[in-house]
Amino acid sequence: MNLKNPVIRLPPERIPTHWINLAPYLGYKLPLISPKSLKPSGPEEALMIFPKGIVMQEMNFEDKEIEIPKDLREAFFYANRPSPLHRAYRLEKHLGIEGDDIKIYYKNESVTPTGSHKVNTALAQAFYAKEQGIKSLATETGAGQWGSALSYACALVGIECRVYMVRASYQQKPYRGILMRTYGATVMESPSEKTEIGKKFLAEDPDHPGSLGLAISEAVEDTVVNNDTTRYSLGSVINSVLLHQTIIGQEAKMQMEMAGDYPDVVIGCHGGGSNFAGLAFPFMVDKIEGAKPDLEIMAVEPKACPSLSKGLYAFDYGDTGHMAPIAKMYTLGSEFIPHPIHAGGLRYHGASMLTSMAKDKGFLDSSIHFQTEVIEAGITFAETEGFPPAPETNHAICEAIKQAKEAKEAGEKKVILFNCSGHGFFDLSAYQAYLDGDLVDFEYPQDKIEEAESKLPQIEGF
Amino acid sequence: MNLKNPVIRLPPERIPTHWINLAPYLGYKLPLISPKSLKPSGPEEALMIFPKGIVMQEMNFEDKEIEIPKDLREAFFYANRPSPLHRAYRLEKHLGIEGDDIKIYYKNESVTPTGSHKVNTALAQAFYAKEQGIKSLATETGAGQWGSALSYACALVGIECRVYMVRASYQQKPYRGILMRTYGATVMESPSEKTEIGKKFLAEDPDHPGSLGLAISEAVEDTVVNNDTTRYSLGSVINSVLLHQTIIGQEAKMQMEMAGDYPDVVIGCHGGGSNFAGLAFPFMVDKIEGAKPDLEIMAVEPKACPSLSKGLYAFDYGDTGHMAPIAKMYTLGSEFIPHPIHAGGLRYHGASMLTSMAKDKGFLDSSIHFQTEVIEAGITFAETEGFPPAPETNHAICEAIKQAKEAKEAGEKKVILFNCSGHGFFDLSAYQAYLDGDLVDFEYPQDKIEEAESKLPQIEGF
Repeated sequence: MNLKNPVIRLPPERIPTHWINLAPYLGYKLPLISPKSLKPSGPEEALMIFPKGIVMQEMNFEDKEIEIPKDLREAFFYANRPSPLHRAYRLEKHLGIEGDDIKIYYKNESVTPTGSHKVNTALAQAFYAKEQGIKSLATETGAGQWGSALSYACALVGIECRVYMVRASYQQKPYRGILMRTYGATVMESPSEKTEIGKKFLAEDPDHPGSLGLAISEAVEDTVVNNDTTRYSLGSVINSVLLHQTIIGQEAKMQMEMAGDYPDVVIGCHGGGSNFAGLAFPFMVDKIEGAKPDLEIMAVEPKACPSLSKGLYAFDYGDTGHMAPIAKMYTLGSEFIPHPIHAGGLRYHGASMLTSMAKDKGFLDSSIHFQTEVIEAGITFAETEGFPPAPETNHAICEAIKQAKEAKEAGEKKVILFNCSGHGFFDLSAYQAYLDGDLVDFEYPQDKIEEAESKLPQIEGF
Repeated sequence: MNLKNPVIRLPPERIPTHWINLAPYLGYKLPLISPKSLKPSGPEEALMIFPKGIVMQEMNFEDKEIEIPKDLREAFFYANRPSPLHRAYRLEKHLGIEGDDIKIYYKNESVTPTGSHKVNTALAQAFYAKEQGIKSLATETGAGQWGSALSYACALVGIECRVYMVRASYQQKPYRGILMRTYGATVMESPSEKTEIGKKFLAEDPDHPGSLGLAISEAVEDTVVNNDTTRYSLGSVINSVLLHQTIIGQEAKMQMEMAGDYPDVVIGCHGGGSNFAGLAFPFMVDKIEGAKPDLEIMAVEPKACPSLSKGLYAFDYGDTGHMAPIAKMYTLGSEFIPHPIHAGGLRYHGASMLTSMAKDKGFLDSSIHFQTEVIEAGITFAETEGFPPAPETNHAICEAIKQAKEAKEAGEKKVILFNCSGHGFFDLSAYQAYLDGDLVDFEYPQDKIEEAESKLPQIEGF
């Protein structure tokens, strides 16, 4: 077999001491806009909703580095950090690119307790909540990846967690809900009887399947009603979450250095933007500062929801229900409901503000794939590297394989690095659909973009 | 929070170079007995069924160490070996035993690609099959842990895998079957139309739910019918499988040494015996040779299936269908069907030959627990250490917690080490049953032991 050790590990003392804040590198100073007044909203509103430590980070446009509190840094030990970097020798062999001309590396975030990168920000948010004396965090979850991570983090830190889980998902993916309850979280099928908005929807339809937007509304209502004890927690999109994820890319840089390499291309799948940014931003800094002008940075989206690839760069509502702030981002329109692809985590209509500005300034590219080719890539990965990744993650793998094949055909050298953001043990129904020949492809209807443009909120002064 | 790094890692070059063979330490020389002739069976019959490398190991009663082939040792890199040893600081804190008087360590085998220790022997068996030019391995699986591990190993080594999965399990735990197919394995619901015995049972009952014994029969028939290309693979019980698992305990010894400790008690859950033996045998050698005479070694069983704790030490059939060899072991009788507890991997009526002899010679003890207390222990573990273990594994955790509490009450010092043999991501229905208050306890009906004794095969000369 002639195998080489594919795993590059960092010792625990090299867990990063700071997060990297991309805002000052981009000159990002855009405000969040209140969906009610259509005017910039100050920190007062945010402090009602989020822990103070999170709000401070969200609005920090100055500091390029933000220190990670010592206790939190040590909590990462428990989340199996530093996560390993792997050289994908067996995938390379399968693609016929043995040797060192084309190399594929991946950062393996699937090793965290709940199986994805979401734990990185969940621990940070739980930490800042605990520090402030907050007793509970409320959140929503769709497929359950984020709800699991926050439930775990709250158990570790020692605060309560209430998760509003979209009813259709709760029933289709019962294991995710059980996992959260195993960590001691309270899990409500949304719409629930616990909130006024939940009751309203249940009165209209007792079998309401729920939606992510509705679950957000319930979690925010819970936060406002129980404001003496509770704050709200969000798993992606906002600046502070992207900040927390930059430990991924910082570790990967150190590990690539240990391997004696620097990537020619950095690849991440892209939904709300947090796993992509987590890996990409620390490398992007080298590109922005001119040290690595030719570095390619690639955000990979589903053809069914190509926010960065086909969207508008404009101020838009962050959610379908128009309760969350308005922000400047790439968007397909806040009313766009993507087809029900298996990569539920990539079905967001927008993109994070920082990723959007980086794209607008030319610091990253994006590409799109159909879900059948994406799951095919996941099967190739499982057969060679040993485990089935999450359907979201498979978008990055699909792109990595495509680029490796193209480099081989062109006779080029290339070092490819992608983020393996999570495992797919709770998402095997996507694989089943493929293996049984039942997987259907969806493509964004481009003619909808004009309608989206007509419905953008009109924000003045920015 | 004041956290300390709980993870003790070995560098990859310290993956063991040899397996430890307990047979010569015990003076074990007992034959396997043919269920047809009731006489000792030679290697010829075994060579029809198993790869040659496995048969040689199965009958090696002389060598205390058996070298691990270099390529196989390197394949362990891909299975995330060496696996980490954890100090369970957070579990200790929860139990109120902070400090260093009572310490709890666990070896974490859940980090393998398919989530359990089974991968260790699956890789070895696939390796020896490949070396011999065998094209396919056939096997059976109940809950699917073993089928997943062998499917993975065959994909890594590059041979085919055919898994006969008990129909009831296939339908109750669909994700396990999908996982195997994702690795490229062919998975049959057993009884299947692929074998004569399968067809026979299907003719009698087209909806036959299957059984582990029947699935074994199908896999063995497949092996015999396709003997030019195929051999059979078994996931526990036999000497060679226990041998392969001894890398667990060897790694743990090195890691305990790095931590500056040696255990007072080594704990593993016990079904067929392989995860227990894997951790315990390398430590047991110290006890047998007199270096650690006071070392306590504890096999933990379900109250519903207490083979070592309540069984007879006698020659008995290895399977319900009386097709597998007869061996001397602790047994509850080959016709005993344990209650349907969630820890399906601990529902074997017997125990491995080596573990049985070690128990008979006083080198190990056993204890028993109800499944509610076992799942409770798993929830405590998830809330503190971060992930829900397999229901089987929770037996070891339950015992570790019990011993820690007893030591605390007695004011004793104690170093506890247990094997965390696998995660429970595919077994969350056990947690759901507990959380919903639906979990029922079962206890072995001790009055059945006389019936079992009356049905033992009569073997002469040993």
